[in-house]
Amino acid sequence: MTFRPSTKDINFCLQHIVDIDDFYLTEGYPDFDGDILSAVLDAAGDMARDVIAPINVVGDHQGARLENGQVLIADGFGEAISAYAEGGWNSLAADPMHGGQGLPKTLEQACFEMFNSANMAFTLNPTLTLGAIEALSAYGSERQKTIYLPRLISGEWSGTMNLTEPQSGSDLSTLTTVAQPIGNGLYQLTGQKIFITWGDHEARENILHLVLARLPDAPVGTKGISLFLCPKYQIDDDGKLGDRNSVRAVGLEHKMGIHASPTCVMAFEGAVAEMVGPPNEGLAAMFVMMNAARLAVGTQGVGIADRAWQQAHLYAIERRQGRSALTGQGNAAIYDHPDVRLTLALCKAKIDAARALCLATAKAYDQARKGRESVRDRARRREDLFVPIAKAWATQVGCDVASAGVQVHGGMGYIEETGAAQHYRDARIAPIYEGTNGIQAADLVGRKLSQDNGLAARELSEDIRLFIKDTETKNVITLSGLIDALQTFDEATNWLIQQKVQNPATVATAASRYLSLCGDLIGGWLLAKGALAAQERLDQGDEDREWLRSKIALYEIYSTQILSAASAHLSAIKMTVAPLEALTAAAIYPD
Amino acid sequence: MTFRPSTKDINFCLQHIVDIDDFYLTEGYPDFDGDILSAVLDAAGDMARDVIAPINVVGDHQGARLENGQVLIADGFGEAISAYAEGGWNSLAADPMHGGQGLPKTLEQACFEMFNSANMAFTLNPTLTLGAIEALSAYGSERQKTIYLPRLISGEWSGTMNLTEPQSGSDLSTLTTVAQPIGNGLYQLTGQKIFITWGDHEARENILHLVLARLPDAPVGTKGISLFLCPKYQIDDDGKLGDRNSVRAVGLEHKMGIHASPTCVMAFEGAVAEMVGPPNEGLAAMFVMMNAARLAVGTQGVGIADRAWQQAHLYAIERRQGRSALTGQGNAAIYDHPDVRLTLALCKAKIDAARALCLATAKAYDQARKGRESVRDRARRREDLFVPIAKAWATQVGCDVASAGVQVHGGMGYIEETGAAQHYRDARIAPIYEGTNGIQAADLVGRKLSQDNGLAARELSEDIRLFIKDTETKNVITLSGLIDALQTFDEATNWLIQQKVQNPATVATAASRYLSLCGDLIGGWLLAKGALAAQERLDQGDEDREWLRSKIALYEIYSTQILSAASAHLSAIKMTVAPLEALTAAAIYPD
Repeated sequence: MTFRPSTKDINFCLQHIVDIDDFYLTEGYPDFDGDILSAVLDAAGDMARDVIAPINVVGDHQGARLENGQVLIADGFGEAISAYAEGGWNSLAADPMHGGQGLPKTLEQACFEMFNSANMAFTLNPTLTLGAIEALSAYGSERQKTIYLPRLISGEWSGTMNLTEPQSGSDLSTLTTVAQPIGNGLYQLTGQKIFITWGDHEARENILHLVLARLPDAPVGTKGISLFLCPKYQIDDDGKLGDRNSVRAVGLEHKMGIHASPTCVMAFEGAVAEMVGPPNEGLAAMFVMMNAARLAVGTQGVGIADRAWQQAHLYAIERRQGRSALTGQGNAAIYDHPDVRLTLALCKAKIDAARALCLATAKAYDQARKGRESVRDRARRREDLFVPIAKAWATQVGCDVASAGVQVHGGMGYIEETGAAQHYRDARIAPIYEGTNGIQAADLVGRKLSQDNGLAARELSEDIRLFIKDTETKNVITLSGLIDALQTFDEATNWLIQQKVQNPATVATAASRYLSLCGDLIGGWLLAKGALAAQERLDQGDEDREWLRSKIALYEIYSTQILSAASAHLSAIKMTVAPLEALTAAAIYPD
Repeated sequence: MTFRPSTKDINFCLQHIVDIDDFYLTEGYPDFDGDILSAVLDAAGDMARDVIAPINVVGDHQGARLENGQVLIADGFGEAISAYAEGGWNSLAADPMHGGQGLPKTLEQACFEMFNSANMAFTLNPTLTLGAIEALSAYGSERQKTIYLPRLISGEWSGTMNLTEPQSGSDLSTLTTVAQPIGNGLYQLTGQKIFITWGDHEARENILHLVLARLPDAPVGTKGISLFLCPKYQIDDDGKLGDRNSVRAVGLEHKMGIHASPTCVMAFEGAVAEMVGPPNEGLAAMFVMMNAARLAVGTQGVGIADRAWQQAHLYAIERRQGRSALTGQGNAAIYDHPDVRLTLALCKAKIDAARALCLATAKAYDQARKGRESVRDRARRREDLFVPIAKAWATQVGCDVASAGVQVHGGMGYIEETGAAQHYRDARIAPIYEGTNGIQAADLVGRKLSQDNGLAARELSEDIRLFIKDTETKNVITLSGLIDALQTFDEATNWLIQQKVQNPATVATAASRYLSLCGDLIGGWLLAKGALAAQERLDQGDEDREWLRSKIALYEIYSTQILSAASAHLSAIKMTVAPLEALTAAAIYPD
C-alpha cells in the first residue's frame, strides 16, 4: 500500500492542459511562477507521502469514537493535523492580508488531490476549514475577518459546515434550528445538525462552526435562513479563548468508510453565535462555501481514484496467472492480459480526464476573481457550469476506479488487508455529500443552463470547436470521436433549453445523463489537449517518449471506449417522461 | 429493512418469459405443474422472509470467527441452517433416487433468488452444498452417490469447493496440493487452500470437501489435476461418522462484506480422501460443479439487487424533500423526483432482465438434461453460451443496483444502520468469485463463441429475430431499440469470429464489452417478451392494470436507456489493440 504522489501527471496537466502559465507574473498572482509551482507540488507530495498517507489504514481500522462527550480520533491524526498546519497548507490560496500566500486555487486543488489520495478521511479536516475560510472571506465583517481568518488560514483552528438536519437535507427550506438574538450582535442557537464532518475533535484548540439557522421572525422557506458563526470556545475581541460554548457532539455515525473522519450529530443548546453576512441571506453565503466545497469533493474523487489505480496497477504487474494474449508468454503478469490492461487503462484515462476537469474548474474560479477584467465574466460562467460537472463526474470516476481496483485484485480485493476495499468504501461517500450527484445534475440543467440562455454551454462548445479546428490542421491525433461527441452535446443542449419551459419534468429526467455527456465530452477534449501537447513534445525530441506516448494512447482508448457513448446518452436524454409517469409507487411495488 | 419475497415478479417471469409450463407434465418432470410451482414459490418466500432474512443484519455485525481452531458462526445461523434442511430446500432439483424432489433447476434458482435476497451470506452455505451434489451426481461412483448424496440432499451435511491456492486463482494449472495414494482407493491430501466459502463450521454434523489436487506422478498443468472428496469426519461404508480428518480451518478472511459466511484458509495435513471421477480429469469434473455455481452466483446478483431496490424504493416513498417536477407538489416524496424515479426504474428493469436471464439459463440447463431428445443439443449450447453472461451481467446488476440503493438513501445510505451499505458491500464479491467477470468474458469469446463456429450465438440471434417478427405484426410494443441492438450483436459476433485466429489479443480486449452487449440484448429481448405478455393480459381484461403497465413501461425505459448503448459497445469492441500495446507498465507508471 505504498503511495506515490502523482506530481508528474499533475504537472503535465497544469502545464499542457490547464495552461497554468497564464497566471505567471500576472496582476492576480504577482509572485507566482513555474519554480514556485514545482516547489509547492513537490512539497505537497512529500507531505502527502510522508505524513498523511502512513495513517490512512490505521484511521480506517480505529475510526473516531465518542467517549464521555469527547470525540477521540485515530492514532497519529492529531500529530498529522499539527504537521499539516505547520506546513502552512491551508494558506496556499488564502488572502495575504490575513496570512495567506495568495497563490492560485488551481495549485491548491492540485495539492489537495494528493492529500486526498493519501488519506481522504484526514483531508476532510482541512477541506472543511477551507470552506469556512471561503465563506468568511466572502461574507464576514472586517472584524470577523481580522480575528478569525488568520487562525483558520494558519490551521490553528478548524472549521465546519452545519447545514443538514434530519428532515432537511437536499431541501434546506425546512430547517428549524433557531437563532435567538441576545443583544450585542450575538445570538443563541438551538437545534440539532447531522452529518457534520469533523464536527468535533481535540486536535485543534478551537473549532469554528458555520451554521444555518432561522431568526425568530424569519420568513418560511429558504428566504428565512441566516448564516452564523458559532465557536466551540468563545472568543474575545482580541481572539483569546474563553468559555466552552453550548455546542457539542452528541453522536457519531457508524459509516461504511472514511472512518477516521468523525461525522457528528451536533447539538446546539443555546450556543452563542454571531451572524455572518446580512440576515435571511444565509443560503447565498452558504452557496459560496458550497461551490468551493463541491469542487473540493470532485478533487476527492480524483485523489481516491488515483490511489486505487496505483495500487491495482502495482498488484497487476506483480501478480502472475496464465498465458498472455498480448505477449504469448505463460505465467504472465495479469497486467499483460488485455482485459486487465484495458480496465487499468480506462481507469487511468478517466483519472487524467477528471483531474483536468477539476483543475480547469479551479482555473475558472481563479480567473473569475483575479483574472484580467475582460475574462472575468466568461470565467465565472465557466466556473458555474463546471462545478456540478466536476463534482458529480469526478466522484463517479472515484467510485468506478475504486471498484475496478477491487476487481483487478480478484479475491484479494475483497479482503480488507489489501487496502483496495478501503478505497472502495471511502470513495462511495463522494457522490452523496455536498449535494448528491442527482442534485448536481439538477443544478446543471435547472440553473446553469438557464443563465444567459445557455451562454456558458455555447462558450464551451465554441472552445472545443476551436480546438478541433486548430488541431485538425496538424493532423496528429484522431478527432472523430470528439467531433461526434461535440455535435451530440450541442444537440442535447439545444433540446434541453427548448424543453425547459414546457416540459420541466422531461428536463429533470434527462439531467444526470446530460451531466454524464458533459463530463465525457470535457474529459475527452482535455485529454486530447494533453495528447496534442505530448505529440508536440515528441516531435521536439523530448526523450520521455514512452510516457508521452502513453498520454496519446490513453486519449485514443478514452475516445473509443467512452466518447463513443455520446449518441447513446442523447437517446436516453430524449426519453419521454410517459413511462416514468406510469411507474407510480403503487404500480411498481403493489401492497 | 423489511424484506418481501418477490414471488409475484418471479412467477410472472417464469410464466410469461421463461415459459416454465413447457415443463408441465413432460417426461422430465412428470409430477410438476402450476400448482406445485406456486406452492413451492410461496413456501420458499416464507422461508426467506421468516427464517433467513431476520438474521441478515446480525450476521453482518457479528460475522464468523475462529476461536481455538473452531469456526463460530453468528447467532441464529445454526438454527436457520437446520430449519432450511428440515424444509428440504436442497432437495428441490436433486435426483429422486437419492432423496431429491426431481423438480426443475429453474424452480430451484427461482427459490435461491429469494434466499439470496434475504441473506446472501447465509445462502452461500446451501449454494456450495448444491455444487457438491452436482459434482457427485455427475462424477461420483455408485457407492459415492449412495452414501453421500442423500446426506447432502437432505441438508444433514454440507459441501465445499476447494480450488484456489495462494499462487493459483484464475489459473488453476499451477496448483500444488498433493494426493498421495495410501491403498484401498484412499489418498492423503497435503496442501493449503484459500478462499474456501463456509469451509468449516459446527452447524452440520459433517462437511464434504471437494478438493482439486495432484497425484504424485501427475502431468504438470491442468491435465494433472484430479478431484477428491475429503470429509471433515471420516465415514465408514454404512455412512457412520468416524475420526476427525486432518483438514482444518487455520484462518478466516476479514472481508468487506458477506461477513456471516466464513471464508476459510484450509490446511490439508495428510487428510484422508477418495477420488471422484477418473485420475487427472478433475478439472472437467470441477467445471460441471462450477458451471452450476456460476449460474448460482448470477442468481445472487439478482437477489441482492432486488433486496437493495426494495429497500431504496421504500425509502424513496417515505422520504420527503422539495418540490416534484412530476407532480408539481411541494414536500414531495423523493420517489416523485424524476431523477430518483428514473434511477429506481432502471434498477427494477435491470433486476427483471437479470432475473429472466438467469432463469432462462436455468431452463436451458434443465432442457439440456431432461428435455425431449430433439431439444437437448440446442439447449446445451444455450446453457453454455448463457452461463458466463448470466454470471457476469447479473452480478454487475447486483453491484449497480446496490450502489443506486445507497445513492437514493443519500447520507443515510452511507450509514451502516440503514442496511443499504451492507447490500453494497455484500454485492461486491459476486463479480469476483467463481471466475471473475473478466474470466467469464474470456470464456464467452474464447470458448463459447468458438464451439460449432458460433452456432449458439446464431441460434440466439435467430430466436430474437423470430420474436421480433412475430411481435412486429401485433404492433403493441416498440421494438426499434431491440432491432438495432440485435443487428449490432450480429455484427459484433461475426467480427469477433473473424478476428479470432489472426488477432487473439483483439478478441480478448473486446471480451468484457461484448459480454455487456450480449447481456443488454438478452435482457431487452426477455423484457420485451414480458411486456408483450403484459399487453396481452391487459387486452384480455386482466384487472391488475397498473402493475402490468409497469412491465411495459420498464421495457420502454430499458430500451431507451440501455439498448441505445449497443452501437457504443460495438465501437468499443472494434478497438485496435495498438494503444494498449503502447501502455507498457513502465510507460504508464515510470519508476
